[in-house]
Amino acid sequence: MSSEIGVVGAYSTKYEARSQKETHEMIREVATSVFKTVDKGMEPEEVDLIVVSNYSDSFGNILHTAPLVASYIGNLRATGFRVENACAAGTTAVFLAWKLLSSGSFKNALIVGFEKMSAQGSTARAGEILMRTASPEEYRVGAPFVSLYALIAREYMRRYGATEEDLALVAVKNHENATRNPLAQFQRKITVEDVLKSPYISKPIKLLDSSPLSDGAVAILLSAEPRKYTDTPVYIKGLGLRHDFPAVYQREDMAALKAARLAAQDAYRMSGVSPKDIDVFEIHDAFTISEIVLYEMLGLAARGEGYKLMREGVTSFSGSHPVNPSGGLKAKGHPIGATGV
Amino acid sequence: MSSEIGVVGAYSTKYEARSQKETHEMIREVATSVFKTVDKGMEPEEVDLIVVSNYSDSFGNILHTAPLVASYIGNLRATGFRVENACAAGTTAVFLAWKLLSSGSFKNALIVGFEKMSAQGSTARAGEILMRTASPEEYRVGAPFVSLYALIAREYMRRYGATEEDLALVAVKNHENATRNPLAQFQRKITVEDVLKSPYISKPIKLLDSSPLSDGAVAILLSAEPRKYTDTPVYIKGLGLRHDFPAVYQREDMAALKAARLAAQDAYRMSGVSPKDIDVFEIHDAFTISEIVLYEMLGLAARGEGYKLMREGVTSFSGSHPVNPSGGLKAKGHPIGATGV
Repeated sequence: MSSEIGVVGAYSTKYEARSQKETHEMIREVATSVFKTVDKGMEPEEVDLIVVSNYSDSFGNILHTAPLVASYIGNLRATGFRVENACAAGTTAVFLAWKLLSSGSFKNALIVGFEKMSAQGSTARAGEILMRTASPEEYRVGAPFVSLYALIAREYMRRYGATEEDLALVAVKNHENATRNPLAQFQRKITVEDVLKSPYISKPIKLLDSSPLSDGAVAILLSAEPRKYTDTPVYIKGLGLRHDFPAVYQREDMAALKAARLAAQDAYRMSGVSPKDIDVFEIHDAFTISEIVLYEMLGLAARGEGYKLMREGVTSFSGSHPVNPSGGLKAKGHPIGATGV
Repeated sequence: MSSEIGVVGAYSTKYEARSQKETHEMIREVATSVFKTVDKGMEPEEVDLIVVSNYSDSFGNILHTAPLVASYIGNLRATGFRVENACAAGTTAVFLAWKLLSSGSFKNALIVGFEKMSAQGSTARAGEILMRTASPEEYRVGAPFVSLYALIAREYMRRYGATEEDLALVAVKNHENATRNPLAQFQRKITVEDVLKSPYISKPIKLLDSSPLSDGAVAILLSAEPRKYTDTPVYIKGLGLRHDFPAVYQREDMAALKAARLAAQDAYRMSGVSPKDIDVFEIHDAFTISEIVLYEMLGLAARGEGYKLMREGVTSFSGSHPVNPSGGLKAKGHPIGATGV
């Protein structure tokens, strides 16, 4: 039964730097519109599980959103809750909905992810909210995400010989991909030179190596009886959810992302699929270094050789293993709670 | 198998108005200490699920707490996530852990609930954070929790003839109960006169009808093989999780708490137990009116007669159906994420 769980509907707002919609308006839009995307139709009453993904209530000043979603779709009988797991909140929502559907506890899940990161009106304020993901020690000394990824990037580049140009290639690719995605936040191509000339945020990471602050929301419908709702469900064949030390300095290998490797291994084992069988990858490129390291964690490249895939064009839109054809977090945008849904 | 799931360990900090511990120190204390409460011992490595309950990251400026807990107990192989469901975050954590254990997905769950509500240093700031639970319309007009409960109280009193003295009796009972609980925030008895003389916050609710802002954390260990860890597990025989409209004005009956009635019915049905079989109740008395209405929702009293139970002493410590012998939220304290765990 578990192998039969599939996505039967999906709806996303456009991702924007500053949406004119309030947070709850974005939630209402995706929660109600997703039903219109189901080929054979689904009534809101058929949903018995609502899982909401949101990173911080400090952006939109909003909590208790599962019953809010329930009230918007007019179905207060569904069981609901919100999950948070830093930037993996959305993935966690899908993971939990899958678990709860596959065990037979529920039949149809509505998953809503959202974040309106412009809501607090200042990048400094947003930066503080983002730092809450770090370990208490890192938060105390004021280490932002970009500095923690810069530690990873410097160690990776020192050890394996990747350059700032290699990082830039990721940004160039993902910006180009985003121009094919009308919902993406950025709709302009950039060059390696543009990236290299953009200011350092935390050396070696520059402005154009970084994903933006984004406003956006997404909803999907997951069903344990997907064929009832569409002839072309997107089945979920494998899943993994793993952790590492929140503090970068505590990790076994500072230049790796071990949790991603373990989660990918779980998903490969469960599905019987290997990396080379996969046609399209959507992976976490909050900073360009992240995409390169993930090539290695996911088994697309040997350790220390991820940046060569980028040089060879393997992961470009027309390559043999396209990565982030949506534009990725880098160019599609990264409204945290929506990411991963 | 599902009827075999039981609590095998439990640990709580003292609840305080202003804890000297930082939020992450409270988390570490309960996450590590709970293992020492397991009769036959449990190693942190035996935990394969971590569920964290926290209301708002705006109190403690902390997110991504499931892997933090994992790092504190030295077990990064467990799957973890944080849940939020307003004041039911803790109950939701237990509900989900139970679901995931009963389906065989996991064996042993560590549940950690916490909130350091003094962390932002001002009651006004805390008040704004609490208002995020309300509907967007209520938040927009600035309606705090106490005013929404005041609407419920006024309608209940008008319709059924309960008085402000009846509300006061709940506070008196729960304060007296708290003096028997060394972990409770308040350790002083109060009189009906004390309550009636305390200032109105939102008429008819007074200061002493209201639960306090609290700092505290709790951890429990839930096992699908409880006898392996203790000869006296606390089995979970019935559970329910239901919602109503977040906005009070949208509810079918403004003087009821319908979601609680439905959730209780679910739990009674699942366990085969009826209200009169239950020896001890711990229920949500964020404001005194809430406890009285819940007597009716839980089937302890007929509709409109909850306040009479209080007058007759049925729910006092030595009554036939003691309610909130811990002191309840009113006097034990209400660090939101810890409540319900």
